[in-house]
Amino acid sequence: MEHSAASSPATLPYYVALSQLLGLTVVAVTGAWLGLYRGGIAWESSLQFNVHPLCMVIGMIFLQGDALLVYRVFRKEAKRTTKVLHGLLHVVAFIIALVGLVAVFDYHKKKGYADLYSLHSWCGILVFVLYFVQWLVGFSFFLFPGASFSLRSRYRPQHIFSGATIFLLSVGTALLGLKEALLFKLGTKYSTFEPEGVLANVLGLLLICFGVVVLYILAQADWKRPSQAEEQALSMDFKTLTEGDSPSPQ
Amino acid sequence: MEHSAASSPATLPYYVALSQLLGLTVVAVTGAWLGLYRGGIAWESSLQFNVHPLCMVIGMIFLQGDALLVYRVFRKEAKRTTKVLHGLLHVVAFIIALVGLVAVFDYHKKKGYADLYSLHSWCGILVFVLYFVQWLVGFSFFLFPGASFSLRSRYRPQHIFSGATIFLLSVGTALLGLKEALLFKLGTKYSTFEPEGVLANVLGLLLICFGVVVLYILAQADWKRPSQAEEQALSMDFKTLTEGDSPSPQ
Repeated sequence: MEHSAASSPATLPYYVALSQLLGLTVVAVTGAWLGLYRGGIAWESSLQFNVHPLCMVIGMIFLQGDALLVYRVFRKEAKRTTKVLHGLLHVVAFIIALVGLVAVFDYHKKKGYADLYSLHSWCGILVFVLYFVQWLVGFSFFLFPGASFSLRSRYRPQHIFSGATIFLLSVGTALLGLKEALLFKLGTKYSTFEPEGVLANVLGLLLICFGVVVLYILAQADWKRPSQAEEQALSMDFKTLTEGDSPSPQ
Repeated sequence: MEHSAASSPATLPYYVALSQLLGLTVVAVTGAWLGLYRGGIAWESSLQFNVHPLCMVIGMIFLQGDALLVYRVFRKEAKRTTKVLHGLLHVVAFIIALVGLVAVFDYHKKKGYADLYSLHSWCGILVFVLYFVQWLVGFSFFLFPGASFSLRSRYRPQHIFSGATIFLLSVGTALLGLKEALLFKLGTKYSTFEPEGVLANVLGLLLICFGVVVLYILAQADWKRPSQAEEQALSMDFKTLTEGDSPSPQ
């Protein structure tokens, strides 16, 4: 029997649909905020700054979140296909986030602003480096055909915890950045319920909701992939049969 | 065998010690920040505002985090004792946080400032209400002798997920508040690496580290309580024996 009615596999598609609705709304509201109150987006002029929040939200929030959900959405597809999709989505997320990072550093340079002084920037750089390291280590263990089944089994829980943590830190960093952008522009006008302030607060709540729904989907034991038998076989394909490492459970 | 060497029960005390070191450091650094750069703490005068961050950090971060860890730290003690300690720690956390909330609303009233306009305040009120509801529902299910064993078993995973989420939202809200306090006072001076800004950034990173370590301890399957047999017996004491509800696993 399931742990609870809410977490039975039959309800998973509804939660996934909700996550996608929230994720797309987050991207759309970020675009609306930048378009309505910040003059839109361009690589030249002071509009270059606006490339930063849009790219970070698309890459580090929406696509990173979706990459984490791949193992739940395609829980009955071939493990290898799912794994490649998981890795590829993270690559796309990373490249888009890199464009967002280049945009803000380039903008600061042109304007003569200081870099990396705020809590948002400290968290942002930390999360971005961790994300890169996590991808490299994940690739080495799970996609590169060198790691044994036992090594993969031992590393898997750490990879999952780190992945979820990096995602949550990304959401937190986005909230800090949003708050920074608001306070720098609005100052004390923020307290008069300016439309931009209210819209940005709503965007903040939407970011939190997306993070919570993704975390909820990841946390349900009944929504995980039914069995690891297939991966065990795959691991044997790549490694065990050639080197004689036993695929017995650790 | 354990999933990995890092998460064997023998290493749990080191992680708990690290969490306490981080939690106490967070409280100390918050105190140092308020003492060194904000004139200290008092209920009267403009220092009343400073009661807010100190109380929220002690209540909603340190004590709430510790309340979540109770089931891991006392994983071999009697379940009922652990449960009462878990509930009591949350009550103390709630009362301290309530003092912190009253302080900021009273301060705003005296100064004629607007309430609840910022993302920090929206998140704060949301988290505080959720925390109260979570405590009430948790009390009704797990401490009040009315819920059946099957009802408790079905609600438990939701209670654990909600508890961890509320704790993480508390950390996020604290970061937003810290950022707000910094930007309102420092403004563009924040970018010149003012000592207060650097100290507050370090405090932000410490808050994140505390949150991550608590989450890591909660997430390790091997560090959970070994068995639910005792709780099943307790549930029978209160409910099953009098009403004939079968304590068979759900």
